[in-house]
Formats: sequence, C-alpha cells, structure tokens
Amino acid sequence: MSLRFAVIPSGKSLAACVAAGLFLSVTAQVAQAKNKSAPVPAVQASKFNLADLVKNSSAADWRALNLENTLYLELPKGRVVIELAPDFAPNHAQNIKALVREGYFDGLAIVRSQENYVAQWADPDEKREVKTAKRKLDAEFTVKYAANLPFTRLPDIDGYAPQVGHANSFPAGRDPKAGTAWLAHCYASVGVARGTESNSGDGTSLYVVTGHAPRQLDRNITVVGRVVQGMELLTTLPRGTGPLGFYEKPEERTPIKAIKVAADVPVSERSKLEIIRTDTATFKSIVDAQRNRGGEWYKVPAGHIDLCNVPLPIRVQK
Amino acid sequence: MSLRFAVIPSGKSLAACVAAGLFLSVTAQVAQAKNKSAPVPAVQASKFNLADLVKNSSAADWRALNLENTLYLELPKGRVVIELAPDFAPNHAQNIKALVREGYFDGLAIVRSQENYVAQWADPDEKREVKTAKRKLDAEFTVKYAANLPFTRLPDIDGYAPQVGHANSFPAGRDPKAGTAWLAHCYASVGVARGTESNSGDGTSLYVVTGHAPRQLDRNITVVGRVVQGMELLTTLPRGTGPLGFYEKPEERTPIKAIKVAADVPVSERSKLEIIRTDTATFKSIVDAQRNRGGEWYKVPAGHIDLCNVPLPIRVQK
Repeated sequence: MSLRFAVIPSGKSLAACVAAGLFLSVTAQVAQAKNKSAPVPAVQASKFNLADLVKNSSAADWRALNLENTLYLELPKGRVVIELAPDFAPNHAQNIKALVREGYFDGLAIVRSQENYVAQWADPDEKREVKTAKRKLDAEFTVKYAANLPFTRLPDIDGYAPQVGHANSFPAGRDPKAGTAWLAHCYASVGVARGTESNSGDGTSLYVVTGHAPRQLDRNITVVGRVVQGMELLTTLPRGTGPLGFYEKPEERTPIKAIKVAADVPVSERSKLEIIRTDTATFKSIVDAQRNRGGEWYKVPAGHIDLCNVPLPIRVQK
Repeated sequence: MSLRFAVIPSGKSLAACVAAGLFLSVTAQVAQAKNKSAPVPAVQASKFNLADLVKNSSAADWRALNLENTLYLELPKGRVVIELAPDFAPNHAQNIKALVREGYFDGLAIVRSQENYVAQWADPDEKREVKTAKRKLDAEFTVKYAANLPFTRLPDIDGYAPQVGHANSFPAGRDPKAGTAWLAHCYASVGVARGTESNSGDGTSLYVVTGHAPRQLDRNITVVGRVVQGMELLTTLPRGTGPLGFYEKPEERTPIKAIKVAADVPVSERSKLEIIRTDTATFKSIVDAQRNRGGEWYKVPAGHIDLCNVPLPIRVQK
C-alpha cells in the first residue's frame, strides 16, 4: 500500500498510537515506523518528531509503574493494565485494592459498553458480598492543592479548569483560587461509578472512558486512575443495546477472569512497563512537538494542545 | 440491576448516547429512559434535561438529511450513514459522489483501524480505476468565511480556533481575522486521506474519527462530512496490528458491500433520518443544558462545553 492511501499523517498517527491503545511498546512502534516497507511517510524533522524524542530519551525520563498501585484486569482476550493514582483518590485506591485482594471482581463482568462514552464493570447480580473492603467512602472528587502535589502545568487554555497539566503522568486540572486539584476525564481515565449521592460509589463498579473526553464529569465523580495498556480490549467490545449501553442479556457481557494487584502477581507474569515522566525537559519537548507539529505533512501547526491529546508513551522496561 | 451500579450519570449518559452512536432513535431512547424497570435514575429538572428538550422540540427544530448529500456505507454488519457538507468541501463532496456513483468503493475494504484515532477505507490493491471522477483536486482545508455561510457560534473558548460553533449541524471553526471557516475534527468527522502534498487527496480513501477529537488535523486536511448513524460499526472493528493501525492480512479487513448516495436508493430502503437544526432556540437550550448540567446527579456544573461534546441528536423522521 502506497503512501497516498496510507496516510493521514505519520508523526501524528504514531503519536496518537503511542498515546492510545498501545498494541506495541513505543520501541516496537518506532522500529516499525522505520521499516521502509511499512506505509509510513517520510520522517519528520527531528525536532518535531515524537518517535525520535522518545527514542532519544534517557532512563531518567521514564518511571516504572508502581506495582502496588497497578491493577491487571484479566479479560478473555487479554490484559488491561490500570495505574491507580493514590495522590488523588487515596481512600478509593485503597478500597479498590482491598476489593481486588478479596477476589471481589473475579468472575464478575463488564456489564456496559456505551458508544463514545464508557465501558463499566460490576456485579451484575448484586449478590457478591464484600468482606474487608468498605461499602461507604467519602467522595474524592478533588484533593487539596498542596505544594507537594506534583503538577506540571500546560500553558494551553482549557474550558473546564483554570489550569491543566500532569501530575505524575496523570492528566489533571487545578483551581488555585479554590485550592483544589483533580484528575481529568480523558480517554482511558478510570472512575468510580456512583448513584445520586456523592458518597455512593465504593469502587465495586468502575468505568473507563472509551471515547471523547467527557470532561463535564470532572469534579463530579472520583477518578482513581488510568488505563495505560489494553484500551483496545475495552473500546472494541460490542455495545450494549439497553439504555445507557448496558447489555440486555447475561451472555452478552464479557466475563472478568480476575483483577489482580501487580505486586501480587509472580514476577514472570507481570507487565513490565514504564511510563513517561511528565516533569522532565523531554516531556516538555514531546508536548511542544505535538502542539506545533512540524515535518512535511502538516501545513498549519495548531499552536495548542488539548490536555486529553497529550501523548503519555509507555514502553517495556529495559 | 439497581441504581447504584448502573449509573455514571443519567441525563448525561443519555445525552452522550444521543450525541454518539445512536443505536436507537432519540424517541426510542427517551421511551426507554422512561421505562421504570430500566437502570436509569430519576429524571432531571426539565429545564436541564436533554431528553425532555428533544421530546418537546417542534418539527421546525429538525431538518431531514439531504438525500443528495447523504451516503450509505454498507458493511456486513449494517449501515453507516454519512452526511456530506458541500458548504465546506464542494469539490470533494462532488468527487466522492462521482466515485460512489461509479461504484468505485463497492467491494473495497476498511483497511485501517487505529485505536483512539481513525478507521479508514481504500482500495487495498490500488488497482481500481477511476472512470468519471477526478484524481486531482485542490485542497479544501478551509473555506472563505462568507456572510451566507451558516454559523451559530458557541460562547465557549476553544484552543484550536478563534471561534467555534455549528454550521448547518456540523461542528466548525472560524477565524474572522483570516476570513476562513472549516469543519472541525470531532469524533465521527469524515475526512479525505492524503499524502504529503495538500492536493494529494481525491476522496478514494476516506477516514472517520473514532476517538478523542484530533483537532490538530483541522485546516490540514479536507473534512467532507460526518457520520450521523452507525459509528459503533466502525469503532468496534478489531484494531489493525500493523503500523498506524493498518491491517496486516487481507482477511482482517472489513469488506465494503457498497457505498450509495441516499437519493439513488429505493425509498423503502432509505434511512429516514432527521438531525437537530443548530440555528434554533431549542438547540441553544440543549447546549445550555449540557453546559450546565442540572438535576440531582451533578454536583458541579462545568460551565463550559467542548465543541466536540455538543450533542447533535438525530431521530427517525415522523
């Protein structure tokens, strides 16, 4: 397949690919992109090339996922890797880990898949008992914006938050005036489903954003983390045909084999992933490159980047 | 399934559902949402309820899809309905219709599905000949911002365009200073794949945005329209495992049974759809309701709406 058909843009596509589902490690993607037989157009000017920036990064530009805060959602077709963000939802992260370690989720199911919105799992029969975890937690919609909370601000304007940026590789918003910070609802964000009451979510039902960022949910629901690998296992699920994308028949649901804390999984079975650090000069260069895409393909650089379009590359640990 | 598990939010979910894939007509969705046995929480205050606004709309709040500018992409699992936007890409719309009427696309395939980015179709073998359509067209990245170009501006800020709004039910950007307007890359936008040269896209390969809006593509590629129904047929396709989400093996591709212009299809086989008009008081109310969600579930109204989160309901013609 020749260039003419193959392309929207190259650097951009690779970027989106890196930012997104991550079928491959960044390294593998870069290797593939350099394969001359692949339908990838000319390499962009190095200064504006995400792949080169990633390739030329140093070990200090990456951090390993914290095993104690990483969950493996094991589905019939593979593993979804979730990183929890205890800086923003300490009590919910702890409760979800307690649920995981009780085996609460094992054998439950994905009960909902709504187009351009969320996939959600829960106990479809609502019969499973909770042993050690709590059934009532105060909401963690925002946290206090403290000096020790990491936050690398983007200069870009945002309609949903006075300031946006990244906190330890999570997309986040901040309101200095109100003294609050929160995780943003981007594609791949993981949140705690709740009913009408703020404190009605306990982590027994979680959802993942599978479409365009529903940022109106920010500060209305507790975000606990982010899918860093395996999004395609959730986004390609058949959509539920019931209201709100719930499956109407039990057999339409996708069973959850298990959810595990990475630290509890034998070393040989772990996904050994690193994520880009967001408090480095390299990350700033990556964002700059995405904000003003160069190379031959782009005719008009955007001069702006949306928080939820910032790539957060992962790679297999070296 | 009870409320506690069922919900992220209700009005919002319904809104997203309406805005998104549209398994059901709005009417059917509203009917389902009112079914007491469905896992849908209490109805929101009428003033802030998308479903009620849609239900209470008048015939003048809707327009039928223009049959001459509507394409049916027929896939093995169903029909994707695309509305072309000749106001913004007159030459490309015309050329694509010429290709359609030649039968150019019939029997071709979806060759690419990249996570959180695009699905794209083309002639995988690049052997099909073009008969009456053109193989070279000037780019239509922007159009002249003329007084007669419809544009209902949103008051919301946007990082990618000085002004955003809707032009005849299409999300669009505008730059009064430069005197230009363009269709925005939102989820469901349809664009003309091209190579490095601006004029290298002729419509023989088209893509649909399947993830978070890649607005950096705005003004860099010709957007010709928008999928108004059937997005789930594209977003749930298995992702290609080659670079940029291209399928590596021919058998992984999804065959295109045919693409037809709606006007050429027998009346009985047409999808009789109406889309919300974007130049009405009703539409303004819908956007207001989405910008500041009320009801019992929302604790903090966003006070802002992203162009690509504005719902554009469709319904079956009455």
